[in-house]
Amino acid sequence: MKLSEITCPADLKQAQAQDLPALAQEIREEIIKTVAVNGGHLASNLGMVELTLALHRTLNCPTDRLIFDVGHQCYAHKLLTGRQARFSTLRKTDGLCGFPRREESAYDLFDTGHASNAISLALGMARARDLKGEHYQVVAVVGDGAMTGGMCYEALNDAGSSHTPLVVVLNDNGMSISSNTGALARQLTRMRVSRGWLGAKKAVADALRKTPVGGDALYRGFQRIKNHVRNVLVRDKYFTSLGFRYFGPIDGHDLTGLERVFRQVETIEGPVLVHVVTKKGYGFRDAEEKPEKYHGVSPFVPEDEKTGPTLGAAAGAHITQLAESRPDLCVITAAMTGSTGFGPFVEKYPDRLFDVGIAEEHAVSLASGLAAGGMRPFVAIYETFLQRGYDQILEDICLQGAPVTFLMDRAGLGGEDGATHHGIYGVSMLHAMPGLTLLAPCCEAELRAMIDWALTQNGPVAIRYPKNTKVNLPFAGFSAGKWETLRRGGDAALISCSALLEECLTAADTLEKNGLRAAVINASTLSPADDGCLLRLHQAGIPVFTAEEHALTGGLGSIAAQHCARMGLPSPRGMLALPDAFIPHGSRKQLLQRYGLTAEQIAAAIQKVVRP
Amino acid sequence: MKLSEITCPADLKQAQAQDLPALAQEIREEIIKTVAVNGGHLASNLGMVELTLALHRTLNCPTDRLIFDVGHQCYAHKLLTGRQARFSTLRKTDGLCGFPRREESAYDLFDTGHASNAISLALGMARARDLKGEHYQVVAVVGDGAMTGGMCYEALNDAGSSHTPLVVVLNDNGMSISSNTGALARQLTRMRVSRGWLGAKKAVADALRKTPVGGDALYRGFQRIKNHVRNVLVRDKYFTSLGFRYFGPIDGHDLTGLERVFRQVETIEGPVLVHVVTKKGYGFRDAEEKPEKYHGVSPFVPEDEKTGPTLGAAAGAHITQLAESRPDLCVITAAMTGSTGFGPFVEKYPDRLFDVGIAEEHAVSLASGLAAGGMRPFVAIYETFLQRGYDQILEDICLQGAPVTFLMDRAGLGGEDGATHHGIYGVSMLHAMPGLTLLAPCCEAELRAMIDWALTQNGPVAIRYPKNTKVNLPFAGFSAGKWETLRRGGDAALISCSALLEECLTAADTLEKNGLRAAVINASTLSPADDGCLLRLHQAGIPVFTAEEHALTGGLGSIAAQHCARMGLPSPRGMLALPDAFIPHGSRKQLLQRYGLTAEQIAAAIQKVVRP
Repeated sequence: MKLSEITCPADLKQAQAQDLPALAQEIREEIIKTVAVNGGHLASNLGMVELTLALHRTLNCPTDRLIFDVGHQCYAHKLLTGRQARFSTLRKTDGLCGFPRREESAYDLFDTGHASNAISLALGMARARDLKGEHYQVVAVVGDGAMTGGMCYEALNDAGSSHTPLVVVLNDNGMSISSNTGALARQLTRMRVSRGWLGAKKAVADALRKTPVGGDALYRGFQRIKNHVRNVLVRDKYFTSLGFRYFGPIDGHDLTGLERVFRQVETIEGPVLVHVVTKKGYGFRDAEEKPEKYHGVSPFVPEDEKTGPTLGAAAGAHITQLAESRPDLCVITAAMTGSTGFGPFVEKYPDRLFDVGIAEEHAVSLASGLAAGGMRPFVAIYETFLQRGYDQILEDICLQGAPVTFLMDRAGLGGEDGATHHGIYGVSMLHAMPGLTLLAPCCEAELRAMIDWALTQNGPVAIRYPKNTKVNLPFAGFSAGKWETLRRGGDAALISCSALLEECLTAADTLEKNGLRAAVINASTLSPADDGCLLRLHQAGIPVFTAEEHALTGGLGSIAAQHCARMGLPSPRGMLALPDAFIPHGSRKQLLQRYGLTAEQIAAAIQKVVRP
Repeated sequence: MKLSEITCPADLKQAQAQDLPALAQEIREEIIKTVAVNGGHLASNLGMVELTLALHRTLNCPTDRLIFDVGHQCYAHKLLTGRQARFSTLRKTDGLCGFPRREESAYDLFDTGHASNAISLALGMARARDLKGEHYQVVAVVGDGAMTGGMCYEALNDAGSSHTPLVVVLNDNGMSISSNTGALARQLTRMRVSRGWLGAKKAVADALRKTPVGGDALYRGFQRIKNHVRNVLVRDKYFTSLGFRYFGPIDGHDLTGLERVFRQVETIEGPVLVHVVTKKGYGFRDAEEKPEKYHGVSPFVPEDEKTGPTLGAAAGAHITQLAESRPDLCVITAAMTGSTGFGPFVEKYPDRLFDVGIAEEHAVSLASGLAAGGMRPFVAIYETFLQRGYDQILEDICLQGAPVTFLMDRAGLGGEDGATHHGIYGVSMLHAMPGLTLLAPCCEAELRAMIDWALTQNGPVAIRYPKNTKVNLPFAGFSAGKWETLRRGGDAALISCSALLEECLTAADTLEKNGLRAAVINASTLSPADDGCLLRLHQAGIPVFTAEEHALTGGLGSIAAQHCARMGLPSPRGMLALPDAFIPHGSRKQLLQRYGLTAEQIAAAIQKVVRP
């Protein structure tokens, strides 16, 4: 049986056992081929092929419910549930999403992307089933990395003590999201990779050779806590004591063995844990040998993407340098040391970096404790994942006035990963937090100045910056609370921040050609807003516009509107922003275009109001 | 040695062992006497007396660091650290806080109130100590209830795998915050209790007799998961496998034994867990026998507080009634079934109420799973504690468009519990969440109408309402998205919601006496805002004011300003709100006065702008 003959899992059940290895191989080739071109998660998906085949051969989806934690390991699932024809569009604008997506298929139950929630979701479905007197299986597939998250513990306790029948598959691949991803990605962004598998393979291999040493130390951080959790959970029969029936460990590449177990657990009246040991990158020698190098591979550099080091790398480099003369500096990461730019730091100061695993709640409060003990902690977490620490930022950081600096990477449109990975709610999350200063740099120099300034403060600071995009502007110096005028003009004032300033400056060029002189203002301190600037613009009779790579509500525009109202000034004349909605995956450039935030669109919007 | 002779823990160390029982008794009497008058946490504090004495006799605070999880069990600690003279002001406006407060004493290290974070805070301090080469002990005291929270798991894993020396005291009192509190409190609010211990004791006993049956079922929910967690953690040597040295179980009322253990663990180079078994209400027979009745006692009904059933009770009663004909309705609580008003529900439908323990993250995602399985879940959690589920509301509820209804109790000023318990950030937390409708009722009838409406919707709804305060207004009917005019007037429009409408209506009376006719508008749908209403007010030339029992930023005023700006309307003329700050404890009436939100102050603020 060929992959092309499988349009749904029912087809798969017709396959003979002896056909399956060839089918698995075909799936692997399809994944490798696509990821080599489109980027995506390679090793974790190669490791999931037999497990996914076994699950779909024994379950009756979509009647039975299959939920992937995080979801980036769902490629084989997508290929087996009618999405083979579209698989080449993976992660492209308007193409298949790299994560489960309900819009795509009835086999995807939740739009996921954040870790450690699958057991909660599955337990809810299982309870709904029981309350409604229905009969189906509910299976959650959870990686060992996600098991470091406290939500899993909450859900396991609840499931174990209530005896609700459900199956948790622990996909133990000995590692999860590697902290090394970023170092590789940085190398990869420096080159252009030719289409096709062979070319990509060679380029990836080249990139690996260029990856700075330090993979080991990076690997150790998250690995320590992950191994610890796995050992406690599995070796010490924790699952059994919780009330789960435990099956395992089972070879995750032995299809027959897997199918046997999944058929066996079907009839068990209570929670079951199946411990499956898979090998990341299985079936692809390079990936298998260096799985941490292949977690997220994005060999292609889109035409519209900037090259050069990321702002995260710049933050990491700067803090590493500062740490030499400041023994009180320390860093906390949550399973993302490398990709937040702190590989060099952990290499040099392994004792001052705490990688807590996928445990953002703990990460934030740990920082508060470190600060109370006299350290100056930085917490480096992607903006979207910091959402997990909302309560802790308010209660354990702001209420204490703790001098902790948050480094929120991947602010703005996140690109190919989609709705769960965009950093477009961060301002609304944080700008109401009492005593927190919220900053957004537009270039490396400003980022460094902000870090330096944060270290002079006696309270919390959050600095949010985008992934790859940078602005080349004549940096005049950062002054906290002051919005710098980057370009003067009396017909309109365009207030923006961070990467979008580049579009704004171009928009001002366009407007000038049409006879309109627009000022461009860098609102690098988002909170507290620069009331003086708003007042001066009003007094000068210059109409105010805001533009931001953030959802409208709770963003820069909202802040400006609120501050104008408080001062008795007229409302801003225009607030350009992303809609109050979830934004799908796609390239930043294409998404800016779709939501009216390119230079041309910004210019047109201003012109329409100022000189209609 | 008398309690009055102890001004700091050093004094305590001079006491002879044979003096300690009398001292403990004196502390208990002080606690009972004060709580009987001021309200507060009785049973948990009575259970902590010997443990606190033993800790302060063996530690050298404030050099050694003692951190209480949640913190409501710190009364003996306050009495032993120089605050005896002020203890009678406990929980009163400008008096001692019922929780640790850094402002009060160098012995209070963090302003706490939310559960399960103490191990993270302690681990941070311990790491800071080690990095700085300092030498002191760090001790976290954590109740068994707090151990149901996933943050504890994250912190225990981190501490256990990194071998950092710190002491976690598991205060196992067989129960934690009882879900029964609310039922008792409701009974208690119906009476006035005479000053003094005997009177209070009698009144409390009377109240207990009037508490509706159902304590057992209420108790069972949280108890199930808490017992489960305790059994797994303790019986199965989980702590040992985590890497902790385990000592216990130790009688929490045997001072000599406790001191011996605390001296023993001082020298251990690594994480230690001391399992102490205490009895809630120890030393007070009634409280000891029925500890769940005494968790939070507030015998006094302040002059300015309304009587009658709470909105939470009304929500619980209404949903219990609806559930009869709607088998798809179910409820999730997080260790607060009784106090959120769902005692009657769990009595009648024990299979449809899930009390997950102190595990708000899991609670939210569990609701998403239940909804995906075809149920209509209500999640009943205090507004401030729902902060723990911020990411899950965004990712697992809103992104899925899940038809889940959040019942956010204790919205607005929370009164005597203070900064960590006010519900004054809820609008800013939720109003930017795509697809979520955010409502605020002003009376029982409106609350019921909102619940009915939420059940007709195919997406998430959040309803936030205050604890005790109610408004008696001519309820005209709830219409989602429409702001009802409660009182007409053309000189100013005062937009507000929920309990504060009462102040606004009185303010309008006052203004009328001064010749100003102010409209009062009920913004019962906070998000999405009623643009039509704002537009009509503008067209009618009526200046707009907002007033809210919420922090300014991200609240109703911000929403109005943003919506006015978006429509090209002028800014609101005034936005009355609480400051963007943390608000200490105090009576609602006094706090409203302090922050300019009483009827008289609102009237004055409007008059100043409209007719200066």
